[in-house]
Amino acid sequence: MVIVGELINTSRKAISEAVDNKDAQYIQQVAREQAEAGADFIDVNCGSKVFNEVESMRWLVSTIQQAVQTPLCIDSPNPEALEAGLELIMHTVPMINSITDEGPRFEAVIPLVQKYKAKIVALCMDECGMPDTAADRMRVVGNLYVKLKAAGVDDDDLYFDPLVKPVSSVASAGAEVLDTIRLIREQYPQVHFMCGLSNVSYGLPNRKYLNRLFVAQTMAAGMDGYILNPTDQGMMGLICAAKTLLGQDEFCMGYLKAHRKGFYGE
Amino acid sequence: MVIVGELINTSRKAISEAVDNKDAQYIQQVAREQAEAGADFIDVNCGSKVFNEVESMRWLVSTIQQAVQTPLCIDSPNPEALEAGLELIMHTVPMINSITDEGPRFEAVIPLVQKYKAKIVALCMDECGMPDTAADRMRVVGNLYVKLKAAGVDDDDLYFDPLVKPVSSVASAGAEVLDTIRLIREQYPQVHFMCGLSNVSYGLPNRKYLNRLFVAQTMAAGMDGYILNPTDQGMMGLICAAKTLLGQDEFCMGYLKAHRKGFYGE
Repeated sequence: MVIVGELINTSRKAISEAVDNKDAQYIQQVAREQAEAGADFIDVNCGSKVFNEVESMRWLVSTIQQAVQTPLCIDSPNPEALEAGLELIMHTVPMINSITDEGPRFEAVIPLVQKYKAKIVALCMDECGMPDTAADRMRVVGNLYVKLKAAGVDDDDLYFDPLVKPVSSVASAGAEVLDTIRLIREQYPQVHFMCGLSNVSYGLPNRKYLNRLFVAQTMAAGMDGYILNPTDQGMMGLICAAKTLLGQDEFCMGYLKAHRKGFYGE
Repeated sequence: MVIVGELINTSRKAISEAVDNKDAQYIQQVAREQAEAGADFIDVNCGSKVFNEVESMRWLVSTIQQAVQTPLCIDSPNPEALEAGLELIMHTVPMINSITDEGPRFEAVIPLVQKYKAKIVALCMDECGMPDTAADRMRVVGNLYVKLKAAGVDDDDLYFDPLVKPVSSVASAGAEVLDTIRLIREQYPQVHFMCGLSNVSYGLPNRKYLNRLFVAQTMAAGMDGYILNPTDQGMMGLICAAKTLLGQDEFCMGYLKAHRKGFYGE
C-alpha cells in the first residue's frame, strides 16, 4: 500500500495563501504532519497558480525538503512545472503525477520519467478523453503499458490511475472502476495503482462516508495506492483494518496498533 | 441482495427464554421488526434446544407466520428439525439452511429441498471438514453443484456459503473467502450467496466495525446475500451505500432514502 499525502495543493485556500505569502513554516508543518501520519509520498500540486506555477513548484519543493525526507510526488499536467520540481529533488526517487496517452503530453513527460528515474502515475486517458467503461479504460491501459515499457519503465514504477467519476451522474461509474482494477491486476500483476477517489461521491450527501467505503471496495478489488489525507484517522484506520481482512497484516499487528492508538473509538 | 434476518436464534438468551416460556408476543415482535427493517427472509434457528429442537421449530414457525408473511429460512443441521419447520410453511417458498457435501447429511436434506421446492444454502464443506483455501472450497462447490443440479435445483435457488473463518487465527482467511466469491461468480454466474460473516472478526476488537467492512469487501467481490441483524441501521446503511457505489442503485434513490431516514447521521 502506497499513500500519497494530498494536503499540499494550492486548490486548498490555506496552502494557496501560504504560497502567496511564502509562509514556509506552515507548508513545512503540513508536510511533517503528513509524514508522521504515515504518508509514503507527499504530493506537491500548485496547478491553480496559473501564472506562476513553475516558481511556486520550485519554492514548495525546496521548502518541503527542508522539513522532511519523505519522497515527493510532483503533481502537474504541465511538463515545465514537473521539471522545475524534479530538478530540485534531493532525497530519493520521486513520483510524477501524471502522464496520459495524449500525444504531446506523453512526449513531453516521458523524458522526465527517464531522466529522473521517477515512478510515474499513468491516467487512463487519451485523445478520446476520459473513458466510461472498463473496456475503454483497458484499451488506454494497454496502449500506455506498451509505450511505457518501450521507454524503459519498470512495472514496479508504474502506477495506473483508473480515473474515478461520480456515481451520481452515471450509476455504473464505481463498478467500471472496480472492473478496471481487477483487469489490470490480472493482465499486469506487477504494476501498481494510484488514485484520488473523492470524485465518486460528488453530488451526494455523507461524502466522507462514501469515500471510505469506496476505499474498502477498491482495496478488495486489488487497488494498492491512494492520494488522500493521511491525517484523517478514520480513513487511515479503515485502510489498516481493510489490510487485516485482506490478509496483508500478519498477526493483525497493524490493526491492533491502530486500535490502541484509538483509531476506531469515536 | 437477499437479507436473512438472524435474530430468531435460540443461541440468543432472550429468544431462548421466549421459546421456553412460549412467549409468542416477543417472538412475533422480533419477527415484525426484522420484516419492517427489510429482511427478505426470517431465519428460524433453535439448534441450541438439543432436547426439543423439533417441537421448538414447530412452535416458532407457527408463531412467526401468525405475525408476518415474510418467507422463512429454516435453519438447522438436523434434517428432522428442518422437516418439522418446512411442513408448516404457509406463505411462500422457504429457504433451507443448510446442506453440505457430507454423505448422510446430503442424502437426508436433498429430499426436503425437492419436496418443498425450497431455496437451499449449500455450505462449502464435505467429509474433509471446513476447507482453508479458495481452491479447497471450489472443489467442494464443484461437487455440490453437480449433485444439486442432478437433483433438479435451479441455479437461482442455490446459495453458496463460502464459510468465513477468523483472520485472527489465519491471516489469509478473509482473502480466501473473497477469492472464493470471485471464482463462484465466474464459474457459476447464476447462483447466489448466503453467509454469516461475524466469524471473520472473532478474537479482535471493534468487531462490529470489522464485520461491516467485510460486508463492503465481500459485496465488492460479488456477494449478494447475508444473514445478519436487519435492525442494525449502520449495517443496512452500509449495504445500501455499497450498492450505490457498485452501480446497483439507479439514480442513487436507495441511498438518498437511507440518508433521509438518518442511517448515516451519528
